[in-house]
Amino acid sequence: MKPLEGIRVLDLTRVLAGPYTSMMLADFGADVIKIEAPDTGDDSRAFGPFVGKESAYFMSLNRGKRSVTLNLKSSEARDLFKEMAKKADVVLENYRPGTMERFGLGYDALRAVNPRIIYAACSGFGHSGPYMEKPAYDVIVQGLGGLMSVTGQEGGEPTRVGASIGDIAAGLFTVNGILMALYSRMITGRGQKVDVAMLDCQIAILENAISRYLVSGTVPKPIGNRHPSITPFEAFRAKDGHVIIAIGNDRLWAAFCRLIKREDLIADERFSTNACRTNNQKQLKTVLDEVFPTKSVDEWIETLDGAGIPCGPINTVDRAITDPQVQAREMIVEIEHPVAGRLKMPGVPIKLSETPGEVERPAPLLGQHTEEVLHELLGMTPDRIHDLRFRKVI
Amino acid sequence: MKPLEGIRVLDLTRVLAGPYTSMMLADFGADVIKIEAPDTGDDSRAFGPFVGKESAYFMSLNRGKRSVTLNLKSSEARDLFKEMAKKADVVLENYRPGTMERFGLGYDALRAVNPRIIYAACSGFGHSGPYMEKPAYDVIVQGLGGLMSVTGQEGGEPTRVGASIGDIAAGLFTVNGILMALYSRMITGRGQKVDVAMLDCQIAILENAISRYLVSGTVPKPIGNRHPSITPFEAFRAKDGHVIIAIGNDRLWAAFCRLIKREDLIADERFSTNACRTNNQKQLKTVLDEVFPTKSVDEWIETLDGAGIPCGPINTVDRAITDPQVQAREMIVEIEHPVAGRLKMPGVPIKLSETPGEVERPAPLLGQHTEEVLHELLGMTPDRIHDLRFRKVI
Repeated sequence: MKPLEGIRVLDLTRVLAGPYTSMMLADFGADVIKIEAPDTGDDSRAFGPFVGKESAYFMSLNRGKRSVTLNLKSSEARDLFKEMAKKADVVLENYRPGTMERFGLGYDALRAVNPRIIYAACSGFGHSGPYMEKPAYDVIVQGLGGLMSVTGQEGGEPTRVGASIGDIAAGLFTVNGILMALYSRMITGRGQKVDVAMLDCQIAILENAISRYLVSGTVPKPIGNRHPSITPFEAFRAKDGHVIIAIGNDRLWAAFCRLIKREDLIADERFSTNACRTNNQKQLKTVLDEVFPTKSVDEWIETLDGAGIPCGPINTVDRAITDPQVQAREMIVEIEHPVAGRLKMPGVPIKLSETPGEVERPAPLLGQHTEEVLHELLGMTPDRIHDLRFRKVI
Repeated sequence: MKPLEGIRVLDLTRVLAGPYTSMMLADFGADVIKIEAPDTGDDSRAFGPFVGKESAYFMSLNRGKRSVTLNLKSSEARDLFKEMAKKADVVLENYRPGTMERFGLGYDALRAVNPRIIYAACSGFGHSGPYMEKPAYDVIVQGLGGLMSVTGQEGGEPTRVGASIGDIAAGLFTVNGILMALYSRMITGRGQKVDVAMLDCQIAILENAISRYLVSGTVPKPIGNRHPSITPFEAFRAKDGHVIIAIGNDRLWAAFCRLIKREDLIADERFSTNACRTNNQKQLKTVLDEVFPTKSVDEWIETLDGAGIPCGPINTVDRAITDPQVQAREMIVEIEHPVAGRLKMPGVPIKLSETPGEVERPAPLLGQHTEEVLHELLGMTPDRIHDLRFRKVI
């Protein structure tokens, strides 16, 4: 049994942050009913790359969900949604704040018909504050939230994280919020609203950049691949690529110095503690930049592994997804899609011993489950469904 | 009431991924008892920057927890831990796999004394697979997992994300795993093991880089700050910093061209549609690189906002944390530490309407709550505690 079996989610979200949230809920057994606009559906159905006419982007984010078309511009469709919300546990939306209220489907309206409903909103700036109604995209919150300003090569330009961490972080916090609300509901019997803003989440993942600034008064800048307060903790150029080492304490530092036959560095007062090494990072880098080019990446990994020094290569995506550990952990799974055929996608990174999640079913075709769900939730007959379809309500 | 009130967590974790996990649990009301080695404690107590002798890094990640010292090298201390585990809901650890078993405190040993225990392990590579026993740190999993290979300036070096997203993503997934296990336990009455690997989480957040590679066969590389298929959707240099614009359709493009008094670009066949603009991204960048330096960032934001063009600055950390929206959302909070005084740190990004989280108490001093907790959980007398301390068990 999966942990969220029996939990029904009405999912109005599109593109990334919201669909990522509901994908995790689906992986763990929730019945996620994706509500899409007739004809077009989730915007990301139009995002490349495509397998045939199916978006690989869409398919990888919407596995395990059912799709129901509802034209929310029609008041009849909005009434149907409200009826469905009576039989749901979670409503998830990522409209700009105010949109659901204009539909008559805001939190207050939905809890009036279902006090147990958990209403989760995942938006760019959240449901309060001066930017509330402004549009936001991943790169905008990565910029506003400070993350870009600390990412990049030393002395170089601020850099966007190459995955949409603005959306994905928000998705992860939203899942946490929904799970806390579900847990609370077990105790109180009541639902609540979960309001997660992409920008807030960027602040929450900024890590030590905030405390470094507040304590030192110095504004953090990109520092390349090194760690601001642990040294050496970065990539070095080996003979044929980069090797990363991560030496988090003095014991490892001593082991590393012995390995490279530079015991002199252990006692060197510039490098004897992590604080010293961090203060003298440039001098240490000069020393190590002469050490690493003597061997290939594979030679270094083998040598360092043998001495228990944390290390690794910089994998490109092709290498990352075929890495033996990634394979052994089933982090790339394959699933059969009725139109696109067999597709690989990321697996489930939360390994539960008793109620494990699983990637079970492919992403839905647009409206694939409209009739099934309307019959199941609202007891609708085929004739009624035909009529709604004819009148473009669904 | 907070959602996790009444949940007791024994937290053996150090540095970042684990402490980030338990910080979120503490923010939402869990009683997090941080178990630390006597004398040294969590490694990150030694990480700068410092306020007086207190690590700001440590303090920002360990707010709201209690600290108990236990010398787990002592079998007596391990027995005490097992006794405490009988009265706990969650045990959280980020040792290398096998360490807890060597202590006699692995999942099997703990569930034998408490079948309701949720045992959450957050490790570099997880509790299975060929790398299982290898050490890992943030930059190593960012490298192995592919994220560094898609982050960076176009044509430039692979780049580490400037926050420890290897740890933080793992922390976020671990919280999700613990919450799912708590929810399951409400239904089944039994605990389980939650096994989260930092490397797995990197694969899970790689987003469309995986599907782009699998569908096209082309290995994704860093592309700087731009979007692979929407243009212009990137950062430009203004007079005094960068401005990000995100122009997702032709209507916004036309509005933007009018705004910058370059109506000629609307009809320019190189730029007339999003597909054209993306194909001619470099040429368009050359044009816009001459436009943006004419005004300051603030002037651009005001102008672009007024025309409804999605935009934002690249905030440095000082600006990010004082941004009006970040302030309005209480994403920087202040808390009084008994030694370090008033400290600012990130707030709680999950806004729950009925059972909200809160940053309430500062991080503990090392062993601050040893007596309190040993008395509370195990009914120990001051004499017995004194004796344990004398014999370096605690």
